[in-house]
Amino acid sequence: MEIAVIGLGITRFGYFPGLSLENLAAEAVQKALADAGVGPAHIDLACSANVLASSLQQEFTLGQKILWELGIKKIPVLNLENACSSGSSAFYLTCLAVQAGAAEIGLVIGTEKMHLPGNSILSGAATGAAEAQAGFSVPALFALRANRYMHTYGATAADLALVAVKNRRHASLNPLAQFREPITTEDVLNSTPVAGPLTRLSCCPLSDGAAAVLICNKKRAKRYQSRPVYVAASVLLSGSYTNPPSLTGWEVDERAAAKAYAMAGAGPEDLDVVELHDAFTIAEIMHYEGLGLAGPGEGVRLLKEGATSLGGSIPVNPGGGLLSRGHPLAATGVAQIAEIALQLRGEAGARQVPGARLGLAHCMGGDLQGDARSVTVHILKK
Amino acid sequence: MEIAVIGLGITRFGYFPGLSLENLAAEAVQKALADAGVGPAHIDLACSANVLASSLQQEFTLGQKILWELGIKKIPVLNLENACSSGSSAFYLTCLAVQAGAAEIGLVIGTEKMHLPGNSILSGAATGAAEAQAGFSVPALFALRANRYMHTYGATAADLALVAVKNRRHASLNPLAQFREPITTEDVLNSTPVAGPLTRLSCCPLSDGAAAVLICNKKRAKRYQSRPVYVAASVLLSGSYTNPPSLTGWEVDERAAAKAYAMAGAGPEDLDVVELHDAFTIAEIMHYEGLGLAGPGEGVRLLKEGATSLGGSIPVNPGGGLLSRGHPLAATGVAQIAEIALQLRGEAGARQVPGARLGLAHCMGGDLQGDARSVTVHILKK
Repeated sequence: MEIAVIGLGITRFGYFPGLSLENLAAEAVQKALADAGVGPAHIDLACSANVLASSLQQEFTLGQKILWELGIKKIPVLNLENACSSGSSAFYLTCLAVQAGAAEIGLVIGTEKMHLPGNSILSGAATGAAEAQAGFSVPALFALRANRYMHTYGATAADLALVAVKNRRHASLNPLAQFREPITTEDVLNSTPVAGPLTRLSCCPLSDGAAAVLICNKKRAKRYQSRPVYVAASVLLSGSYTNPPSLTGWEVDERAAAKAYAMAGAGPEDLDVVELHDAFTIAEIMHYEGLGLAGPGEGVRLLKEGATSLGGSIPVNPGGGLLSRGHPLAATGVAQIAEIALQLRGEAGARQVPGARLGLAHCMGGDLQGDARSVTVHILKK
Repeated sequence: MEIAVIGLGITRFGYFPGLSLENLAAEAVQKALADAGVGPAHIDLACSANVLASSLQQEFTLGQKILWELGIKKIPVLNLENACSSGSSAFYLTCLAVQAGAAEIGLVIGTEKMHLPGNSILSGAATGAAEAQAGFSVPALFALRANRYMHTYGATAADLALVAVKNRRHASLNPLAQFREPITTEDVLNSTPVAGPLTRLSCCPLSDGAAAVLICNKKRAKRYQSRPVYVAASVLLSGSYTNPPSLTGWEVDERAAAKAYAMAGAGPEDLDVVELHDAFTIAEIMHYEGLGLAGPGEGVRLLKEGATSLGGSIPVNPGGGLLSRGHPLAATGVAQIAEIALQLRGEAGARQVPGARLGLAHCMGGDLQGDARSVTVHILKK
């Protein structure tokens, strides 16, 4: 890819009843514009990602509404939804648009408000109406996976809880994270049961927030940003929907990672920092293995050794992850990429991974037949 | 652009309570695959357009669901919404993806079911909550434009009605159209009043339906299709939201058309056939002028001369238009492009424009401050 990230902006994630989708997005976009030192008139094309506004607020073409309020007009605007990977899919698509020459500077926005009446996303179906009626909600699906993983590899609920403890420790260093108060393994195990072994603190929260990223052709990146970060790989793939599915991992993770590593000419051993889709504690461990950071069944060992903590050999979710930074659905994928860019720029403050030169952002959306509907893997380099 | 259309499929548009979104899409995709002579495994990337499924059916990542049922998996899938221009925006985006080298064969799907409980799309807001409360629904907005146009240029309600009469006559020649029984000016004027001067027959209907198109790099088009059609221009732009807006036209129409004509190296005088966004009778007349088929205030004359009828110098909406083919929102933009491709292939049957070599498809989505949120213009050539 011939693409560079030249600007980024993230809002605080949390509970913001007084802020509209447009308010949240405006803050993120204005931060990204300021970061790149460009004005609204420089934007040639925009892609806005959102999942819930149409169902909860009867809001369509949200991107145009956001941009209108910012005075960004007369350009191609696309509104994208890809479940929890909406933001990173919007990044993927905007990279293609810039690569195809349709824009010099492309804007990617991910925005979500989840604290709204009628939001049944977590109690809703993982895969379809029949599954929902049978109680097969998203947490139940991940609980099933957790039990299978524990059974297969001898992991314990306390092992899984360590993911939440680590990511909260990272979040305590991120001023924009939703939850920053450190927690212990006992806190996780003793919090409200959701679907055994998963408790409230094993599950990502409901969050409001937005994130924005500006990209351009890498040849022109230094016109706008003295510390551009380059897109070494951009991959989006859907599942293979094999039946029966593997419950201890996602085949699409491995396929997307392999494609991304090939594009980047690098392997998992070359990575300095990773942001991945820890919607539930068990998910982070399984994604370690899917991305090749650990072998099958070796994820817990990697975690317990401290390798994936800040200070370890391959810090994962330095921003706090979905579990503690928060998970405003479509904002997440953009925020992950922005966090990796910040890390590669050496601007991640107290949570900086020293000398980070190569980073990976992984996002997953939806479930179908026990497989993911959508996985993105982006590799960024300094 | 280096893109060719190599396959197309359209369902009948109408009222299909027994068919799901997936059923409708499957028919369109299977027709498109058969048309190009390729199998599901040839699809490298897909973009699915839909507007209402998330709000009316709590359905997310619809594209993956449609493709799963067809055995199309492991590929990048994007779900796009751009109001009434969702389908043509998906086409725009898929062209960019193929142009960027992300896919050899790209699939564009537009699917909509509007006959569903809770569908308030037509009584809903044209621009926002305050406007909706004030009764400023979509038909009211177009009625306001119609009155302004009639006042400015001396047109009559009977003049506007001729659009509905013409497009119904065209639809009578299209076996897939929703309404095929010829109507008269009196029928239009005497049908149920909606928002004066617009009556029921002056407004597009609620429709269910789907359409699909397959594209690939033009260099490889003949491997798949003996009669490929080439994309000479692909343009997507949002409004300029000027205040006060012009009520007798859309500035973005002119801007999008000018850009498309420049890309194609052609002008309105070179076109043989046009599909445009006749959501209401008045809209067709104003789009004649926006696309440069007629000068300001000259649209009614063009219509009354018969120039835009089949047999005239520049037939518009040979497929029956939104008014009579029907308007399943996200399916429309894809069906328009498919209709133009059929015309250029000489396969449009009783509604064929003889010798058509250059055609244009125009689609418009959403309204904001009296401007369109999104306009697409695609020019296809033989």
